[in-house]
Amino acid sequence: MPEGEFAFIARRLRPLATTGSALDLADDAALLDPPPGRQLVLAKDAMVAGVHFLDDDPPGQIAQKLLRVNLSDLAAMGAAPLGYLLALARSKEIADDWLAAFCGGLAADNAEYRIALLGGDTVATPGPLTLSLTAIGEVPKGAALLRGGARPGDDLWVSGALGDAALGLKVLQGEIDPAADARAYLIERYRLPRPRLELGQALRGIASAAIDISDGLLADLGHVLEVSGVGAELHADTLPLSSAARDLPGARDAALSGGDDYELLFTARQERRGRVEALSHRLNLPLIRIGEIRAGSDMSVLDASGQEIGVSLRGWQHF
Amino acid sequence: MPEGEFAFIARRLRPLATTGSALDLADDAALLDPPPGRQLVLAKDAMVAGVHFLDDDPPGQIAQKLLRVNLSDLAAMGAAPLGYLLALARSKEIADDWLAAFCGGLAADNAEYRIALLGGDTVATPGPLTLSLTAIGEVPKGAALLRGGARPGDDLWVSGALGDAALGLKVLQGEIDPAADARAYLIERYRLPRPRLELGQALRGIASAAIDISDGLLADLGHVLEVSGVGAELHADTLPLSSAARDLPGARDAALSGGDDYELLFTARQERRGRVEALSHRLNLPLIRIGEIRAGSDMSVLDASGQEIGVSLRGWQHF
Repeated sequence: MPEGEFAFIARRLRPLATTGSALDLADDAALLDPPPGRQLVLAKDAMVAGVHFLDDDPPGQIAQKLLRVNLSDLAAMGAAPLGYLLALARSKEIADDWLAAFCGGLAADNAEYRIALLGGDTVATPGPLTLSLTAIGEVPKGAALLRGGARPGDDLWVSGALGDAALGLKVLQGEIDPAADARAYLIERYRLPRPRLELGQALRGIASAAIDISDGLLADLGHVLEVSGVGAELHADTLPLSSAARDLPGARDAALSGGDDYELLFTARQERRGRVEALSHRLNLPLIRIGEIRAGSDMSVLDASGQEIGVSLRGWQHF
Repeated sequence: MPEGEFAFIARRLRPLATTGSALDLADDAALLDPPPGRQLVLAKDAMVAGVHFLDDDPPGQIAQKLLRVNLSDLAAMGAAPLGYLLALARSKEIADDWLAAFCGGLAADNAEYRIALLGGDTVATPGPLTLSLTAIGEVPKGAALLRGGARPGDDLWVSGALGDAALGLKVLQGEIDPAADARAYLIERYRLPRPRLELGQALRGIASAAIDISDGLLADLGHVLEVSGVGAELHADTLPLSSAARDLPGARDAALSGGDDYELLFTARQERRGRVEALSHRLNLPLIRIGEIRAGSDMSVLDASGQEIGVSLRGWQHF
């Protein structure tokens, strides 16, 4: 017989609630002292088994992905994380061992990101395991990075490498079969995103707009362009591809349209190029210029010879 | 064909996001200015179709119940609500009309409680509709009502009437069949809880401990006793029953063990009786003394002649 809700909370969740704000998970709600002079940043993402992760993904990594996609939203706003609330709808096939491993993933990331569980809810569901997490972060007042600040002439930058996660999913689904090293790297990029928190915070005062790439480069760039009321020109040959991705079929499409990379896409005035490059150095993280913001509302994707490439701009829709 | 995610957000959710903090739902996260000198209170509850509400409950009332059970958590802490984030996992059978009515319920309660949608996530699920809401409220620093403050000798109080919601569910399930008036009243008490926000805020400085009755009186009293490290004596004949509930079979059991009433259970020093009674008058809300806090850890339930009644203390477990 599985352990009951209160035993699960006491044994597995309370050890994750290592902050006074969580009130030992013994109360109706968490009680947070906002840091003075700061704004709070609140992100909430949901994940469903079989839709947002695969049923046989390791439970600890599912927990970490759930947490990290939310931390990535904080990173895109330039925020530092404080803690999170978790809602877990448990399906019948989820055993106590599975939950223990799931909570192990949260414990690892609590240490990694110096955050704590603040509260939440645990319920039963006849459907697939369904998770929702609310992450809370903070930024100095007025310093948050927003999607609406891109201006014509701004450079368009991206961190890390693109397309890895989409290729990792294809590996797991048996659609491509790269060498063992590449295989492991791509799967990890799919399962275990690295929210660019340091980068996001360092971009305050440098970037004019930012977003994290969760739906895919073109879709997320589309969000920035729409909110900023501008267009863009993208140089497809400059898209950063990892050495694992570079020679795989579909790598460029994955970089343009694949989701789940959780890199940051940001814009900055041209006179900030030096500062962005210095930042890339300091963080030991590639920051690559992949295009420019233009007046208007068109998004054009050019190849190395300056010819426009036809791409589908239809973004990822979640339902 | 159902409208896509972005159309749904633009058409249905953005009109609910009537605060600058929501950034028009155009960004990765919400940006909240904490009121100076206040602590934030964060509650997160999840609900699953077929488990926490019935499939044919009116969608607007499902939305209101989801919101209100979270507001009830804020009420139990003495907090005033600021806003909320919503995660909605949409199942295939949920039509656009259903979502429109659901959002209509949120709009009504936004007006009722002067709050707004701050952000969230919408995803698809092959399972039942699954909802999670994170409510954010505020209290003056140090003034939050907690579960751990009950002391021997304190009076035990409850607001409103008990057992109505559990009886309303029995009506909907065809187990009991009261007269039309009582029927309508009990069903509304099940579907549309009234979070005791005014009461909770007024109890700051009066109550020594508080909790909202979601799992049932005995279970929730048990939570208070456990966290406070005390016992209690409960007078079953003093439990407030509505005129609709009073003569129905199982009314006393519903009052003792039925969940979903979302009344407040609180403790206060005996010398506060006058202030509690004055508050009851001012709010035009029954506040009934139903027992006392005792040293030790036992909970005893007495009948009118002072004889102990055997009751099952097993609380509601969510999985």
